[in-house]
Formats: sequence, structure tokens, C-alpha cells
Amino acid sequence: MGNINSSMHLGAFLYAVGHHAGGWRYPDNEICSLLDLEYYKKVAEIAEKGKFDLIFFADRLAIPDRFGNNFNASVRYFASFRLDPVVLITAISAVTNRIGLAATASTTYNEPFAVARAFATIDHLSKGRASWNVVTSTNDGEAMNFSREAHLDHSTRYERAQEFLEVVIRLWDSWEDDALVIDRETGVYANPDKVHYVKHKGQFFQVRGPLNVPRSPQGRPVLIQAGSSDRGRDFAARWAEVIFTAQPSLDAAREFYKDINGRMAKYNREPGSVKIMPGVMPIVGETEAEAKRKEALLSDLVHPLAGLSLLSDSMNYDLSVHDLDQPLPELATARGNQSRQKLVSKLAKEEGLTLAQLGKRFGASRSHRILTGTPAQIADSFEEWFEKEACDGFNIMPPYLPGGLNEFVELVVPELQKRGLFRHEYTGSTLRDHLGLQRPEPVIDPK
Amino acid sequence: MGNINSSMHLGAFLYAVGHHAGGWRYPDNEICSLLDLEYYKKVAEIAEKGKFDLIFFADRLAIPDRFGNNFNASVRYFASFRLDPVVLITAISAVTNRIGLAATASTTYNEPFAVARAFATIDHLSKGRASWNVVTSTNDGEAMNFSREAHLDHSTRYERAQEFLEVVIRLWDSWEDDALVIDRETGVYANPDKVHYVKHKGQFFQVRGPLNVPRSPQGRPVLIQAGSSDRGRDFAARWAEVIFTAQPSLDAAREFYKDINGRMAKYNREPGSVKIMPGVMPIVGETEAEAKRKEALLSDLVHPLAGLSLLSDSMNYDLSVHDLDQPLPELATARGNQSRQKLVSKLAKEEGLTLAQLGKRFGASRSHRILTGTPAQIADSFEEWFEKEACDGFNIMPPYLPGGLNEFVELVVPELQKRGLFRHEYTGSTLRDHLGLQRPEPVIDPK
Repeated sequence: MGNINSSMHLGAFLYAVGHHAGGWRYPDNEICSLLDLEYYKKVAEIAEKGKFDLIFFADRLAIPDRFGNNFNASVRYFASFRLDPVVLITAISAVTNRIGLAATASTTYNEPFAVARAFATIDHLSKGRASWNVVTSTNDGEAMNFSREAHLDHSTRYERAQEFLEVVIRLWDSWEDDALVIDRETGVYANPDKVHYVKHKGQFFQVRGPLNVPRSPQGRPVLIQAGSSDRGRDFAARWAEVIFTAQPSLDAAREFYKDINGRMAKYNREPGSVKIMPGVMPIVGETEAEAKRKEALLSDLVHPLAGLSLLSDSMNYDLSVHDLDQPLPELATARGNQSRQKLVSKLAKEEGLTLAQLGKRFGASRSHRILTGTPAQIADSFEEWFEKEACDGFNIMPPYLPGGLNEFVELVVPELQKRGLFRHEYTGSTLRDHLGLQRPEPVIDPK
Repeated sequence: MGNINSSMHLGAFLYAVGHHAGGWRYPDNEICSLLDLEYYKKVAEIAEKGKFDLIFFADRLAIPDRFGNNFNASVRYFASFRLDPVVLITAISAVTNRIGLAATASTTYNEPFAVARAFATIDHLSKGRASWNVVTSTNDGEAMNFSREAHLDHSTRYERAQEFLEVVIRLWDSWEDDALVIDRETGVYANPDKVHYVKHKGQFFQVRGPLNVPRSPQGRPVLIQAGSSDRGRDFAARWAEVIFTAQPSLDAAREFYKDINGRMAKYNREPGSVKIMPGVMPIVGETEAEAKRKEALLSDLVHPLAGLSLLSDSMNYDLSVHDLDQPLPELATARGNQSRQKLVSKLAKEEGLTLAQLGKRFGASRSHRILTGTPAQIADSFEEWFEKEACDGFNIMPPYLPGGLNEFVELVVPELQKRGLFRHEYTGSTLRDHLGLQRPEPVIDPK
């Protein structure tokens, strides 16, 4: 069999000073300020040196405060804030040259015109490196910062997301590629015949268009999605060009990969036109024993409430009402991230974890796979997943930053390159080039 | 008498490749791409070399299409598009060091949490150089891109703006300055006692907060406003730290200056804590005759429909229904920019202009003052306005870019410096430092 791609794809999933809730306390990690562009520049340069396809920022529109219905644990035990990811990738774009730049924006709490315009602008200024991670948001805390009483139910927010995407794409296509003329002599700046109203009237939005930004270098910024529920998978199969996903095992990942690629036919999409990149946290050591010591130390540094406040946030459910020294009780389906809740419940049951233990576990990687070992061991696992069609690459979640990404780039990337699994150099200039995705032609309504 | 400030303040108001609708065709101007960060970097560096306080981008959320109810004239005759100004100043912040960065965002088509967060993020990444120009937006075309049937009426949009500002400021103050602890040893990242819910429930918004961004270097990004109607002046006197305004004459400007500073007492604000900066388009020549030739050439390059499409957009009224070779008829109060409409009507009547002639005039500077002359003549006028308390500085509107700004920096700035009217060097690092504005203490609700 073997994956049809020649090179796997790598994303650097950046979060705080590392994904592991103990990462900020890790003593070997350089101390950086999350409020300083120098930090982000340093991390982006490491990723670019490692020839990563992209760097990526997730998002939440509120400080986690479902646990106990206050933010005490979140604020006290980890970096509970997040700079605006759209602003962040813009600033980073100005100080980097090749790497793709992905930011999260919510279809539930934004307007399509604003999102289409922001990403088109970034795509211009970065010369074709912009990408939008489409989320429908997760919890009530976010709703309450945006004049709503509660988060939309799962089905309604996907309906809204569907319409949102339709509008955004029509806005991105509303200027044809050759609309600009800019002839000083004749005084013609642009050709109005190549600019088009959108005239969308739907259930959630009315948008006349055209976008007030000409078509961008990539035509359309790259669309990323991470839904894993049945509805989320359909949505991803319809729209996504990159999928981020939490897959704990090879079998589950292969099932997911096959399922998504299978669903694409009904949207007239070619298999391979979406790149599936499961999250993975590499904990790298020169020996396996060293890597395991690192992992144990990181785990020691996590306060259980740090993990539980993150888990409450993800589930949109207050776990503080339960006894921390007892197992996770059976819970009704939460209104938050449904697929993540299933993974967590399964883990807690299989390993017989108390709630406090589960908190520490969730705080480590938030249900993403942790790969602890030598560079060769990590490359072995990557190779197996890639060859067995479990994925098209990986979204790397360094446990601590910038150190954890640097170790990956210095130790694991050369191993992947040596095996012919990963590029030695960028071969193009846009994110679509890196990902091997076509530049879409604009679809113009014939009226 | 004499202005109490030691140095006047200068903004570089950046628009397309120059404010004059003939600017993009001006043959002596270097050709730059509006879609390329290099252009903005070049212009910002010129402003920074000239020790300007800030650069500024206005905004519209739609391509002008009130004239004839289509965008044909706008798209054909000038750069009708605009990159997202919040994204733009972010990118520019990453490639500059000292200059302030002001972007427009609408209180009518945004949510306070999103705006507060974006500007706080820019303030962090730029180390205290961010500024928000608060607008309530102007026309129906913008409404129709944001799922509304028509633009809100003047009074409602100011009520919304008022509440919007209250929420944004409380969000900016929701983290005290010393909330971050970041102690690796004890595992305490931040002190939850120094982070505060906002719990706003008003007519337009419900926002629980806190912001998910710590307090920024300037405490609050600098607030700019440009309302000149009675309601707009009150709003500015309450909130603005910088006011942009179109003032055609010294007397009108002095009246405005006195009026605003007079209104501030009722909001317990000190006179001088707002910097009033009228727009002015300098057309600089080594001789007066050369400057006049430049102005005439620029005017020749404007298509009348370019100006009329901009004017229709500003008035939110379709001027194409009138005869272009007749005077502007008496019009009812438009729902767009009210003070601008008054200025235009007065000019048309006084000078007996046909609609086509008025179009060319409006296309030149959109009712802002044009100062055509030698560097000494321009400095004379600046000095007179500044000394006679007509303003605290000027918002410079180069007719063409980058050339027009470069001429101003090379020729007029040294003249102002020689006269002791303008700084030779920056004396601080934040925009508040440049403007001589205090850093506000956070106001915390005692509950």
C-alpha cells in the first residue's frame, strides 16, 4: 500500500510556552514572554528552519472557567490567556519568509465578511501563506463574552458554519484574479466586469459583497478543520484542506483517514485533496530512559486542577461537583467538544483513573497522543502511521517551547529526512505549495 | 496666548497610494503595490524617520457603490478596496520600532470583546504603540455586508458606540498590571485576585469577561475619534484622546477646538488630555508656482465620477440621479457622515460648482484642507493654527504615496523643527509617550 504522498506534512501547533500543562515550569526550558513578539519570532524561525509546512494557533474566546464556575484554577496554574491568533500570525508573517501561518477563528462569534477580509489581507501581506482553522467554538464562557446566554447547540452551530463557509468562499472569489488593471495613462484602476456581487441571503447571514480586498495569492487561504463527530467529519470532508485530529491509536487513525477520504466523493472531491494531520506530543530523549524521565518530570509539574479546568472547559461541564478521588462518573453528552469527551471517558474507564489523575493526564496533552522516546523511535512511529495510511503528516505539539520544538527540529526532522519521509527544502513559496494543494479557480455566479 | 503643548503632533494618514483621487496616476510618484507589505513598510519608515506620532488607516466595510447603486465608477477610477486595517497595522508593527499605529474599527459591526482583544494584542506585540480609531460607520453598503438591511440611524449607532466603549475599557482593565506571577517553583502562573469579571449587561451587549489578554503596555490603547456632529463632539469629549477632524478654516477650527475642550469638563477630563489634529493635504513645491502646478496636474488626473462615487458613499446618498452639469440640489439630511455633508453643501453653494466640478473637488481631499505652497508657507500655516489654538497638530494626508509623505518629511518637518514646533527625536517608546498622554490606571469594580 503506502501513502501516495512523497513527503509527509508537519505543523507546529503552538500553545502558550508548550502544550503540556507542566511545560511552563520545565526547568530546562528557556524563559520567554508570551506577550513579546520576539518569542513568537524565535519559535517560528525554528519551525521554518525545520521546513515545517505551517505553524498553528488554536483559540478560545474566554478564560476557562467551567471548573467551579470561576477562573481561579485556570488563572493560577497555567497561562489562561491567549493573544488574538489572527493578530499573532499577522505579526509573525512580517518576520518570516516561507512558513505557512494558521489561525483559528470561530464561525459562531464572527461575521463572514470580517473573517474573509482578515484572512485575505494576511494572505496578501504574507504572499500566500495564510490559513484559517474553522471552529464552531466550544463553551458557554465564550457565548457570554459575545452577548449570548449559552453556546449554540451542536447542530445549529454546524448549520451556521456551513453557511458561513459558503459566504466566505464566494467573497474570496468575488474579485477575479485579473481584475486589477492600474493603468495610469487611461486612468483605469480596475475592471468592474471582473468584480462580482455575492448577494447571499440565507438563514444566518445576508451578505451582498463584493469583498473589499482583491483575490489573494492563494486564491483562497487554506481551510483547516478539526471536527471529529459524525457531523464534524462530514463538514471536514466537504470543506477542509487540512484536518487536525486527536487520534490515540493507529487503528483509530486509519479508520478516521479512510472514513474522511471516503466521505469526500459525495462532495466531488479527490482523495488526497485533504491532508490529515493528527496531533502528537513528542517527548524526545537521547535515550528512551532520558525521554521517560522528562515525561515523568513534566507530569510532576502539573497541578491536577490545571488539567481539570482545561477538561471542564473542553466538555463545557463543571467537573468540580464530583469527588476528585473517585472515578469520572458517567456523564450525559456534553454540549462542548463531543469527540474529545468520548476519548477521555474511554481512557478514564480503561485505566481506572480518579478524577484528579485524569486531570493530570488531560493536562499533559489534552487527549492527544504522547510519543516518548529517541529520535529513531519517534521516526519509526511516524513512518508506520504514514505508510499505513493513518495520516498525511502530524501536527507537532511541543510539550514546552521553544525548547521542545527545537529538539524536534534538531533531532527528529533529520531522521525523517534521512528516511525520505520529509522535505529537505521548501519547493514553493505558498502554503498551498508546501501542502501540495491546488490553487482554486474562482467560482463566479453567472449573472 | 499660544498652545500649551511644546511640540505639535503629526499623524500620517495613509490611504491607497495617496489621498488625492488623482494621486495614483501622478507620474512623478513611485509605483507601489497596495497589496505588498513592502509598500507599507516603506511608508511607515518614512513617517518614523520624520518622527511622526503615528500612522493611521481609516476604513470602510464595503466598496463604495451608492453612486448609481453600483460599484462601476469606484472600481474603475480608483483603488476601491482596502486591506483590513487592523491586520495592516499589526504587520507594520512588526517591521517598525517607534511609530504609533492607529487602525479604524466599527462599533456598529463588531463585538466589544473582539475589538478589545485585537487592540490589546497589538499593544503587547508592538510594545505600546496601538491605537483604535472608533467609528460608527457610514453607509448602507456596509450594513448589507453584515446581515443588516440598512445602516443604523445616527442616534442609535452613537448609543451603541457609547456602550461599546464602556465594555471595551472595562475589558482592558480586567487584568491588573501586576496579575502575572509566573513562578516556576511554586507553580503559580497568575494571581486570580487581580483578574476581574466585567459582568456587563446593557442594551446592546452582554459581556462577562475578563478579557483573555493581560493588561497591555499602554494600559489602554489610545482612543481616536472623528465625530464632528453635536452628538459626535460629545462622544469625542467623553472618550477621545486624539480627534481627527476636517476643518476648512482657521476660525472654524478654533471654534471646534474651544468647543471640544469646553465639553470635556462635564466628563471630568482635563483640557489638553485630548489632541485635536485636523486633516490637511500638503502639496509641497520648491516654489509656490511649482506647488500650484502640481495641484493642477493632480486635479486634471481625477475623473469626476471618482469624486462623486466617494461623495455618494460619504453621504450615503445616490448622487447619480442628479444632472452632473447642474449645481448640487438642496438635500435632506443624509444618514451618512452629517458634518461632511454640511461642509460640501457650503462649498458647492459658495463657489457655484456643478455636480461634476464638486466631484473633482471632493476627490481631491474629501473636504479636508489643501495647503499648496513652499515648505516655509506650509510651516507658517501650521504655526499659525498651532499658536492660535486651532489644533494640537495635524493629520497629514499626502496627495500621493510614498512620494508626498517623503517630500513632507524631507522639506516641511525640518522647517517645523527649526522653529521649535516639532520634536527632533522621540523621547519615549509608546504612543502615549509621543502624544504626552498619561497611562491610565485600571478602574476595578469593587465587588
